Amino acid sequence: MVIWGNEKMMTTPELASRYYALMLENKRAQIVDELYAQDIVCKEPEHAIAMGISTITVGLEAVKAKAKARAAMVAEIHGDYCSEPLIAGHFFSVVLGRDLTLKGKPRMSLQEIGVFEVKDGKIVTEQFFY
Amino acid sequence: MVIWGNEKMMTTPELASRYYALMLENKRAQIVDELYAQDIVCKEPEHAIAMGISTITVGLEAVKAKAKARAAMVAEIHGDYCSEPLIAGHFFSVVLGRDLTLKGKPRMSLQEIGVFEVKDGKIVTEQFFY
Repeated sequence: MVIWGNEKMMTTPELASRYYALMLENKRAQIVDELYAQDIVCKEPEHAIAMGISTITVGLEAVKAKAKARAAMVAEIHGDYCSEPLIAGHFFSVVLGRDLTLKGKPRMSLQEIGVFEVKDGKIVTEQFFY
Repeated sequence: MVIWGNEKMMTTPELASRYYALMLENKRAQIVDELYAQDIVCKEPEHAIAMGISTITVGLEAVKAKAKARAAMVAEIHGDYCSEPLIAGHFFSVVLGRDLTLKGKPRMSLQEIGVFEVKDGKIVTEQFFY
């Protein structure tokens, strides 16, 4: 734990543990509110464009809007999975899985690797691989 | 295991296991020879430029040349570490650690996250986070 002014700033292992604990409780909105920096940069693969997802999203409000737009496409979530994080320096990595049905689509299973960069106790970049 | 013509093509979990087994034996050259595609693309962070490392290296020969140039900078490797891989779809992720002394430098400890993309039984992209 690093003390910075009056605030206690989470280290990368602390932040990764908090992320993992919140994912196990499926508190995705709280993860964004509590752990993401204002200037968060989210990177998705090039082929995500075909699914109507931007390859780069910048800023907390834009990331929240993206999550909201995605949630609106979902008919039902049948199951969620998050692996324990791997940690290296100021980065951590997890596998995220989701068993879901999008509106008007057949049920499907999605898996991705997420890599998160931590700076000053917040997540400043996230990049997804799928 | 997918059969393709007369060749047995490794699945992503099989390839990740093989990568991990070879890393534990510190057979890094064999990993490149055996597991990398001819058109491998290696991505390093932007700040690597300051260390004389290209952010993008394309092709097996260029990746081998990069490894050779890096090895020439090393005075002594004191220890190596590779985590068990996380696997999601056709990607896997590991933490790589190295305790080493570069020529003319103090001993240091390096840690990075590597994310690998698999296609047709070979690693086609690798991206490092540090």
